[in-house]
Amino acid sequence: MTDQQLMAHAIELAVKNVRAGRGGPFAALVVYDGRILAQGTNVVTSTNDPTAHAEMVAIRKACQKLNSFQLTGCEIFATCEPCPMCMGAIYWARPARVVFAATRADAARVGFDDAHIYRQLRLPHARRSIPVHRLMRPEAQAPFREWQRKADRVHY
Amino acid sequence: MTDQQLMAHAIELAVKNVRAGRGGPFAALVVYDGRILAQGTNVVTSTNDPTAHAEMVAIRKACQKLNSFQLTGCEIFATCEPCPMCMGAIYWARPARVVFAATRADAARVGFDDAHIYRQLRLPHARRSIPVHRLMRPEAQAPFREWQRKADRVHY
Repeated sequence: MTDQQLMAHAIELAVKNVRAGRGGPFAALVVYDGRILAQGTNVVTSTNDPTAHAEMVAIRKACQKLNSFQLTGCEIFATCEPCPMCMGAIYWARPARVVFAATRADAARVGFDDAHIYRQLRLPHARRSIPVHRLMRPEAQAPFREWQRKADRVHY
Repeated sequence: MTDQQLMAHAIELAVKNVRAGRGGPFAALVVYDGRILAQGTNVVTSTNDPTAHAEMVAIRKACQKLNSFQLTGCEIFATCEPCPMCMGAIYWARPARVVFAATRADAARVGFDDAHIYRQLRLPHARRSIPVHRLMRPEAQAPFREWQRKADRVHY
């Protein structure tokens, strides 16, 4: 399938997701070599899972299918610019490319916080709308020491 | 439990997580009124899920327990500064406060990409290490129109 065909399919999934009442107006695909490996829609409200954005659902499904925590060589198609959570997940999954259609500004116009969260992450902790505090930094090095000591650690 | 007791407990969980070979050296708690509602550790490599960071696991569990996609009034304790994915999830779950111990720089020193991803998200798409393309923005407004037309939509 071409990029346009893949995105048209994702847009159709997003429309159907709203009609079915499963969640927000978003869908995403994980694609390998022009073929759909996994697809996801936003199911935040129907599954009580704030992390169940379309991209997250598709990434998790694709990884299960591949038995891997990496999406090497895959492409992510998303009907809207991924939010910081989803873009973070994409960086951890390390696909080859991301293609999106609507923008964070388009999402903001219909009431979604994506643009707000991007702005928040640029602020120092003290100026965030959700207060962030730090404590016990020295004690918290213990898990890292344990990690470095572990000969058979699996890095990701 | 006090903040210090809660964080000490989380640090212990993170150490045990490494020893058990379940994943990276990280743990997190969702706390309400000084009591632990849910806890999570990093299980990325043992579950083949790049989204299974400690905070994500704890948030998802707490939401299931509360039957809600919001963590209103809750606090997140994390042994390390949440990465952009987890901080994004925190903004979507909307808890009252975040407490962390080790920093993104500490995580970087033992080989984790958190600081790198924070830097990437500040760059324009064209300069990112994972290429990002946009196409079919006009067509992708259809799901948003469907959303606005839907009288019984559940906003999140």
